[in-house]
Amino acid sequence: MAKPTVSIPQGMRDFDAATLYKRNYILHTIRTIFELYGFTPLETPTMENLDTLMGKYGDEGDKLLFKVLNNGLSDAKNAEKASAAFANILQGKSDKNLTERALRYDLTIPFARYVAMNHNTLTMPYKRYQIQPVWRADRPQRGRYREFVQCDADIVGSNSLLNEVDLINIYTTVFAKLNLPIIIKINNRKILAALAVCCGGLQHLTNITVAIDKLDKIGLEKVLEELATKELSIDAITIIKQYLQLNNAQTNNEKLTALRKLLGSAVEDGATELQAVCNTPYSNTPLSVTIDFTLARGLNYYTATILEVQAIGVAMGSIGGGGRYNNLTATFGVPNIAGVGISFGVDRIYDVLEELHLFSNTIVGKTTILFFNLGTENAALAYNYVQLLRKQGTATELYHDVTKTEKQYKYAEAKGCTYVVLINDNDIETKTCTVKNIVAKNVENIELSKLATYPFI
Amino acid sequence: MAKPTVSIPQGMRDFDAATLYKRNYILHTIRTIFELYGFTPLETPTMENLDTLMGKYGDEGDKLLFKVLNNGLSDAKNAEKASAAFANILQGKSDKNLTERALRYDLTIPFARYVAMNHNTLTMPYKRYQIQPVWRADRPQRGRYREFVQCDADIVGSNSLLNEVDLINIYTTVFAKLNLPIIIKINNRKILAALAVCCGGLQHLTNITVAIDKLDKIGLEKVLEELATKELSIDAITIIKQYLQLNNAQTNNEKLTALRKLLGSAVEDGATELQAVCNTPYSNTPLSVTIDFTLARGLNYYTATILEVQAIGVAMGSIGGGGRYNNLTATFGVPNIAGVGISFGVDRIYDVLEELHLFSNTIVGKTTILFFNLGTENAALAYNYVQLLRKQGTATELYHDVTKTEKQYKYAEAKGCTYVVLINDNDIETKTCTVKNIVAKNVENIELSKLATYPFI
Repeated sequence: MAKPTVSIPQGMRDFDAATLYKRNYILHTIRTIFELYGFTPLETPTMENLDTLMGKYGDEGDKLLFKVLNNGLSDAKNAEKASAAFANILQGKSDKNLTERALRYDLTIPFARYVAMNHNTLTMPYKRYQIQPVWRADRPQRGRYREFVQCDADIVGSNSLLNEVDLINIYTTVFAKLNLPIIIKINNRKILAALAVCCGGLQHLTNITVAIDKLDKIGLEKVLEELATKELSIDAITIIKQYLQLNNAQTNNEKLTALRKLLGSAVEDGATELQAVCNTPYSNTPLSVTIDFTLARGLNYYTATILEVQAIGVAMGSIGGGGRYNNLTATFGVPNIAGVGISFGVDRIYDVLEELHLFSNTIVGKTTILFFNLGTENAALAYNYVQLLRKQGTATELYHDVTKTEKQYKYAEAKGCTYVVLINDNDIETKTCTVKNIVAKNVENIELSKLATYPFI
Repeated sequence: MAKPTVSIPQGMRDFDAATLYKRNYILHTIRTIFELYGFTPLETPTMENLDTLMGKYGDEGDKLLFKVLNNGLSDAKNAEKASAAFANILQGKSDKNLTERALRYDLTIPFARYVAMNHNTLTMPYKRYQIQPVWRADRPQRGRYREFVQCDADIVGSNSLLNEVDLINIYTTVFAKLNLPIIIKINNRKILAALAVCCGGLQHLTNITVAIDKLDKIGLEKVLEELATKELSIDAITIIKQYLQLNNAQTNNEKLTALRKLLGSAVEDGATELQAVCNTPYSNTPLSVTIDFTLARGLNYYTATILEVQAIGVAMGSIGGGGRYNNLTATFGVPNIAGVGISFGVDRIYDVLEELHLFSNTIVGKTTILFFNLGTENAALAYNYVQLLRKQGTATELYHDVTKTEKQYKYAEAKGCTYVVLINDNDIETKTCTVKNIVAKNVENIELSKLATYPFI
């Protein structure tokens, strides 16, 4: 058997049909709900200028950008310039003589870039969704790929908390459609900022956030130990300990009451906002969100509401997340455009649905009928009905060659056909054919003229 | 007004919602027909190993590959190695110390790579379609982009000419659905090879093909002049001249008769194949293809049937093309897999449909209803109906803020809403609302309970 002499890059994947049907089912579900909520699509180029992306994702992110080699490099004027460029590259820096473009690292920065470039003509608030791959030169491992799809919805140009409510309802609706039980956690960055202020000042925010982010992994004691090394007073550590235990309260409202009691007026802004979302008037029933004061969402650009979605009943990180940010477009010269958005982790959602056996058996391809090829004349006759059925919207094939019926049958099974149709030699005269449902194992002999109205399912 | 300080790379595009609706209409039409014909989807990674792509598209193609800079470059062991790598790059060569991956240049080579890697498990004949972007570092110009979508259907593992018939019917059906009048030109590489043989030998094939390819641009006399410089005998040039005039015959069959008369037994293989496709038994009516003996399809991998689609009534190059190839997977270690495929030029099809005003007005987004936000209580009440309508599958929005109705009305217009719904203060008591069709300019006052069954169109 011939052996291929070729492979694909590490951390990248081919998607075959069976996988794509399932992925497209997820993407189609999400896209449909985005559109029901008034979001419109946007697609941005695979490459952005390196300047657009550098410095937006932290030092680690800069290193994980896939940079594209300039073409026409021989234009570099002299060896000195060239070797300087290469020296930069060797130090992990970029150099415009070698590269000035990189692949999209997420969808948010290209979106901010797009809004900055088009804010004069966009209808505000601008509600866009975007479903495109992104690339990160991470070390590949199980469940972590170098190319993966992101699926975002954002609203810019509005401070209204109605946006938060819409986005939470999108999460609820999408996962209900996917039959996936979830919990949506909510917090507010202003509350974390208030905690830092109560612990000595905003300069402690990063250390506190970084430590809290590890709570799930290392536990309360280790978090407090880590904080003790960070120039925080004993009083401050006591406050943080009490803060981290606020989650023990039962309801969202009890948690908010306890929070206000602990942090006082410093936390009023954040608490009011969080309360306004959780107890929104825009709902007959309370929103399905759970306040989690330990939710921090890493070191990103969020400034107020933060959200995270976890699947219930399966050990997997978050399958969605988002939040409110201010002024993301300011870095591109256009200040004062507020925004809020959410993201779906499509690869993880796929893995969870697989693990919980939540993909329906009906998520398959469309070929439902194979006409056997039983001779030139038979096939020529058959093809007329193949074309007729296709015209009526039924996926149909004529087997490509005259060959043993077993082989044709195997092909029908492999393609997931529900029916095979045989026009035998004697059928030609009698203008009949045999229709077999190979799933239900029914066989019927019918007139060819009845094929157009046969109840293929 | 704030000015953005950012741009996108040359030759790349953002696609806004209005453009995407139209593009997706084209892609959806093509995808639907592919599936009706039994093709199943495949997606391959954006990046391939450089080895996989280099040497597959000619010297020019090698130069037009977008190469991706290796990460972790500082691993390069010493300055000597590094500067050697850079010297290679300066000469336009690639070097594995700098780059070992490149972006997809077309869909055919990644497909061949996939088939080579998976031929043991694929159901043959394998009929796949693939709709993904490709990248070429070409000089950007009107209608030529550095990132553009390709849309291919290929069958591998079958020599049957039924495949050609299916592919031609796909072209016919797709363009009929798009209401775009086209002509499908067909030729066979074996005929061009026979011409070369009759002109002194196969060594002349490339020169003859290259010259013939220019016929449209430079005319018959210039083509013959060019050929005269290529060591072809006067007899040979006479034969080529007669060959190029074969197209003057009226019907496909008349053309084939004239061809056989001119080139004799050397052309029999190609003529028989071409005739078998044009006069296929798999059709009540003749296939809508036009033999064009001057069709050459450049210097690619085709070995038999070649196809090209042109739009009628608009000056534009080909909007589709394809053909039969042998053994494309052999370069990846797996020989003897025949294939045939077609491609749709989505960007050009888009431009042609635009130019001929063939995009229907109905190709728009889905937001059809905007509920005005006329106060907190009104909005809270409204949101219940917004959610109800969304649940029923109607795209609906509640305006995000309480503000002047003119502003809300403008938003509705900009989003392409058909309806606005107003719940005024007095409506709250009477449980009514005003429904305005802002396109047909109808206004109705109805009970809120009737909203769920209101005939929104």
